[in-house]
Amino acid sequence: MIRIIVTGGTFDKRYDEIRGQLSFDSTHLPEMLRLGRSRVETTIETLMMIDSLEMTDEDRARVARSCAQCAETRIVITHGTDTMVETARAVAEVVRDKTVVLTGAMVPYAFGSSDGLFNLGSALSFAEVLPAGVYIAMNGQHFAWNAVRKNRQTGVFERL
Amino acid sequence: MIRIIVTGGTFDKRYDEIRGQLSFDSTHLPEMLRLGRSRVETTIETLMMIDSLEMTDEDRARVARSCAQCAETRIVITHGTDTMVETARAVAEVVRDKTVVLTGAMVPYAFGSSDGLFNLGSALSFAEVLPAGVYIAMNGQHFAWNAVRKNRQTGVFERL
Amino acid sequence: MIRIIVTGGTFDKRYDEIRGQLSFDSTHLPEMLRLGRSRVETTIETLMMIDSLEMTDEDRARVARSCAQCAETRIVITHGTDTMVETARAVAEVVRDKTVVLTGAMVPYAFGSSDGLFNLGSALSFAEVLPAGVYIAMNGQHFAWNAVRKNRQTGVFERL
Amino acid sequence: MIRIIVTGGTFDKRYDEIRGQLSFDSTHLPEMLRLGRSRVETTIETLMMIDSLEMTDEDRARVARSCAQCAETRIVITHGTDTMVETARAVAEVVRDKTVVLTGAMVPYAFGSSDGLFNLGSALSFAEVLPAGVYIAMNGQHFAWNAVRKNRQTGVFERL
Repeated sequence: MIRIIVTGGTFDKRYDEIRGQLSFDSTHLPEMLRLGRSRVETTIETLMMIDSLEMTDEDRARVARSCAQCAETRIVITHGTDTMVETARAVAEVVRDKTVVLTGAMVPYAFGSSDGLFNLGSALSFAEVLPAGVYIAMNGQHFAWNAVRKNRQTGVFERL
Repeated sequence: MIRIIVTGGTFDKRYDEIRGQLSFDSTHLPEMLRLGRSRVETTIETLMMIDSLEMTDEDRARVARSCAQCAETRIVITHGTDTMVETARAVAEVVRDKTVVLTGAMVPYAFGSSDGLFNLGSALSFAEVLPAGVYIAMNGQHFAWNAVRKNRQTGVFERL
Repeated sequence: MIRIIVTGGTFDKRYDEIRGQLSFDSTHLPEMLRLGRSRVETTIETLMMIDSLEMTDEDRARVARSCAQCAETRIVITHGTDTMVETARAVAEVVRDKTVVLTGAMVPYAFGSSDGLFNLGSALSFAEVLPAGVYIAMNGQHFAWNAVRKNRQTGVFERL
Repeated sequence: MIRIIVTGGTFDKRYDEIRGQLSFDSTHLPEMLRLGRSRVETTIETLMMIDSLEMTDEDRARVARSCAQCAETRIVITHGTDTMVETARAVAEVVRDKTVVLTGAMVPYAFGSSDGLFNLGSALSFAEVLPAGVYIAMNGQHFAWNAVRKNRQTGVFERL
């Protein structure tokens, strides 16, 4: 059983056709799991639905508390890429004896050409088999939370 | 470094618009890795491009030999789902000390609503971290080669 | 008010993921009109759901009768491309004083990269403004029923 | 021969994955015509690439001049929906003896679920057969330039 904690990010951005802007509504996770024909037992918890550039310390504390307090010992967090590493650190300070994998997308799932479906399959798989620890799964790779940074120019996560 | 051995299957089926039939041409793997923004180092080898219902014992032997002889110790095989378990067995009889993950799709990648991208992200991730052995990765799950069957009625892989 | 008569064809083919074959189920027309945000008043009649290579003279007579007997004077017929011209002739022998536009697709709508949505927008527009007559609308063009053939090599409709 | 004048609008918006914002780059028109398998002879002129809310009177004058001065007598203009009616009026004040059809989209073509392909098929078809005049083609319908408004609440064009 894997808990999926949704926080928003590019993953879940959609196009508001009346206002002509990017926006958030409900999460695409259930649709993505159905499309991927996932048979992994999951519980989805939408904790917040925000751009990760707007995430406060208090928001990160809420994410860490959810990880610590939930019954599951294997957790996937969907998160904006810009501050994913900061949230991973906040989780690592609090959570022990659980496998936590943060993932996201560079292109919104709703925009058809997304890396989101690929990353979701990847993150769930890492969460199933990696030992306890806090990881980031992007671009088909996994990184320990304290050994990675996002390259803002290329949009790629790099090992430190 | 992961070797991806392509054998065809639903994964790579496309629509031949002149003849109005399903057909094979070149593999979609490079496009899928690009779409998934994969940064995993991979070598793609197109070994055959066939429906797995037409795969012969000799074809399976070729797949097993490719796994045994290649330099890489981590391998993903894309394969039709109907006889994926038989090929996994043929590989397991020959290959030692390598991590081999077979995966596929129920809906062709080219048809827009495919589980292929999700499964590819999943299979690469399992191939990176699982210990030596032969596995099937479908529906976000992994199975030892001798502990799984495809349920033909539901299209889902089940643990034996 | 435009009547849309559905007969099947590539337009409405889908992928049967359990049997691994192309098949027909219900028509995609309502979904396509919603996606195109169409505000044209339409009535959809699914008359048959077959490959146009399997269409018999009796089937064509049924299509022609539906055109002649319905209340609407403006009609779009979705049809396989292989025998679209034959059906257009059968309709032209029977129907007077109505604008009938046959259209189809070379790639199934369900396969993501279809010409179907483009052709549907085109066919509805021609049906709204062309004078009485029987036409084929493909590739953004319209042809009188007796001045067109399908080039089987290129998949393109050509003026005679 | 139809001239297509590109001005930007939702039609051509794309997602800038590095900055996480909507943006413009080159037009999607050639790709859309290829996907629609269009065989209409067209010349594409990218006049500007802007959101129609930012279009100035001088921009509208440039669009009108392009329509008046080009050799073609049948013209399609792709345009943001918010001020499409204003530009139609500016064109109508200047252009005589030509058929000009403005069209657009509520959802960017690049976002997979666009009305753009449907509207493009529709606009080209209206441009081929309507008599001289300035029209707006949206939602499968056509309107004289001075008999239509956009309903900002519903995103639908309505006859006055």
